[in-house]
Amino acid sequence: MGVDPGTNLMGYAILRVVGNKAELVVMGVIKLHQYESHYLRLGKIYERITSIIDTYHPDELAIEAPFYGKNVQSMLKLGRAQGVAITAAIMRDIPITEYEPRKIKIAVTGVGSASKEQVAGMMQRILKIPQEEMDVQFDATDALAAAYCHFVQMGTPVVEHHYSSWKDYVAKTQGKKKNVI
Amino acid sequence: MGVDPGTNLMGYAILRVVGNKAELVVMGVIKLHQYESHYLRLGKIYERITSIIDTYHPDELAIEAPFYGKNVQSMLKLGRAQGVAITAAIMRDIPITEYEPRKIKIAVTGVGSASKEQVAGMMQRILKIPQEEMDVQFDATDALAAAYCHFVQMGTPVVEHHYSSWKDYVAKTQGKKKNVI
Repeated sequence: MGVDPGTNLMGYAILRVVGNKAELVVMGVIKLHQYESHYLRLGKIYERITSIIDTYHPDELAIEAPFYGKNVQSMLKLGRAQGVAITAAIMRDIPITEYEPRKIKIAVTGVGSASKEQVAGMMQRILKIPQEEMDVQFDATDALAAAYCHFVQMGTPVVEHHYSSWKDYVAKTQGKKKNVI
Repeated sequence: MGVDPGTNLMGYAILRVVGNKAELVVMGVIKLHQYESHYLRLGKIYERITSIIDTYHPDELAIEAPFYGKNVQSMLKLGRAQGVAITAAIMRDIPITEYEPRKIKIAVTGVGSASKEQVAGMMQRILKIPQEEMDVQFDATDALAAAYCHFVQMGTPVVEHHYSSWKDYVAKTQGKKKNVI
């Protein structure tokens, strides 16, 4: 699951890994404009994220998390939205990984300064998303890009490793074993 | 209920209003040092605030919320902790009011630049707290001060107004009515 938190719009996306490929399950935007109270917005983020988790049962959550912002006030607001999204996942025992926007853009397009249009276009091509499903706000495609970035970072988690022999196993896993020792 | 949110220590306090006076029910600190993961800390804040709410059933929550901070990164972290505390209250339908530290200090000591020691000392005097109950960290007395500030701001919510006549009612509520018109 990918999340792009904000207090006006919050994007989310669910990716399924089939074999060594990622497939889009669903993406969308939680609209928070209609709630005037900033507090109510935070409550709605919690409720909706929890409900999406309970519907799709994601194994992991990737969150787009800028570490730098225009000013202290906007970061405080963003921090609140992030904190709520993170807590919703934690309360369901879902591991979280944060990615800086630049890192997500590089993972998806190869360019750290890519526009939101370019990110959306690249996600459409990579995941072969039909045009009619692309009629969403960039908050949704940004969340999808966060999920995809995590998929790339994690390698291909569902692929099982096969070893022909003990020697083969040692050869293929030596790097990992060294780190452990 | 008063809360002083932080990611290392989170202070909380419960005030009871009896007649037109405030009394300390309980105050304490949620220690988050022991959890290495920042995410786990947010989850613990949510769990503990919810559990305190479910134990003491506060009618309102006052939160100490600095609007300015040293830097963007610390505000992001603080925002996350604040967001989680706010959401825990919102999920229990408890109204929230934020107070800047300076405003709380003025409400308690009359001086916006008062030290934490001065705030704690003043709270002890005002609420007649026995010395043995004062053996807590300043995060707890700061949370208590936030709750007390809210009590002062709200007037004395449980006092009922008695009016001897319609004229008396108009005289006593004219100020309020003017604001409404």
